[in-house]
Amino acid sequence: MKLQVAIDTTSIENLLNLVEKVNKYVDIVEIGTPLIILYGQEPVRLLRREYPNMIILSDTKIMDGGSQETAYACDAGADIVTVLGVAPNETIMDSIKTAHDKGKRISIDMINVKDFAQRAIELDQLGADYICVHTASDVQAFGKNPLAELEIASKIVKNSKIAVAGGIKIETVENVKRLEPDIIIVGSGIELSDNPEETARRLREIIDE
Amino acid sequence: MKLQVAIDTTSIENLLNLVEKVNKYVDIVEIGTPLIILYGQEPVRLLRREYPNMIILSDTKIMDGGSQETAYACDAGADIVTVLGVAPNETIMDSIKTAHDKGKRISIDMINVKDFAQRAIELDQLGADYICVHTASDVQAFGKNPLAELEIASKIVKNSKIAVAGGIKIETVENVKRLEPDIIIVGSGIELSDNPEETARRLREIIDE
Repeated sequence: MKLQVAIDTTSIENLLNLVEKVNKYVDIVEIGTPLIILYGQEPVRLLRREYPNMIILSDTKIMDGGSQETAYACDAGADIVTVLGVAPNETIMDSIKTAHDKGKRISIDMINVKDFAQRAIELDQLGADYICVHTASDVQAFGKNPLAELEIASKIVKNSKIAVAGGIKIETVENVKRLEPDIIIVGSGIELSDNPEETARRLREIIDE
Repeated sequence: MKLQVAIDTTSIENLLNLVEKVNKYVDIVEIGTPLIILYGQEPVRLLRREYPNMIILSDTKIMDGGSQETAYACDAGADIVTVLGVAPNETIMDSIKTAHDKGKRISIDMINVKDFAQRAIELDQLGADYICVHTASDVQAFGKNPLAELEIASKIVKNSKIAVAGGIKIETVENVKRLEPDIIIVGSGIELSDNPEETARRLREIIDE
């Protein structure tokens, strides 16, 4: 089981500081969408230069222009690029083809997908490398979490690997781990904790137990 | 009826060159999503500096983190920010509130919305400034266009203004104009035409006839 840190901080400096602290405890570093909206692929490029062997995910949340946008992220140094589950199938197929041609992978972000089970089956068949069960941060305040959808995904997804995100923190990670996703993504649970380094170390420990 | 040029070019230099050529014929300049995925809000910032009075739309296609991402685009100088129609209502409401607090506006991109009529009514009620009927570029090759949805929107949307995008060019703009949207958006129809300046001039003429 892999641990991914999702970083949504507001500056490149904070990003680099946080990566330096938590890097050794995580398998994948995600450049969050807010950073991309603000800086484009520049943070991906910087991290790639500083950490040649790090697995970097660019959370582009592609909705259209699949081939072009996937290429931008891959060429900046991303290993994994995200496409929205609500995007057209053409966009998803173009993104997968472009990423695979470059030896990279696509994760489909299932945020706000309505017909979850049916769509997960379709995306599995389309050849998504990862299907990411994800509760939007804007709705987490209303008590929503990704556990029910993770349980469905783990039963019906055959080929894609399964990632999970959405408000996961030290206190809740055991419940997630029990459902055996391939990747557990923790964002604010690390970034906004009192001691991000110690939190990442502890999460690594729990996941590996 | 307003004319918006959507620019998806691959470099800042090309963007500035194109804007210089077509600027006087259009009402709104859109920084397309591929440019934002690559450069973040930097192109918005540059255009705002060079053209203090231009109406700039940042095509962020927000899916989550509505307040934070809207603020990034507004603070860079955007007048209008896009949020996806498939995003959670919480994200849409947060984006509208943030934009309005800053004296800016939100356009909801209806790309790949399944229950179009019902969703358009909801978004109209949520207070979207614009509802943008939009056929994804990745599916235009399959003969899809936004006319049928534009016709529905023009009947049911009461308060929001209506924008339309998706493969519109000189040869097809009359059919779009007939349905009287508030904004007609032309992207590759200008950018990839033999003479973008002359194409923009002619589109302006047709729209104003």
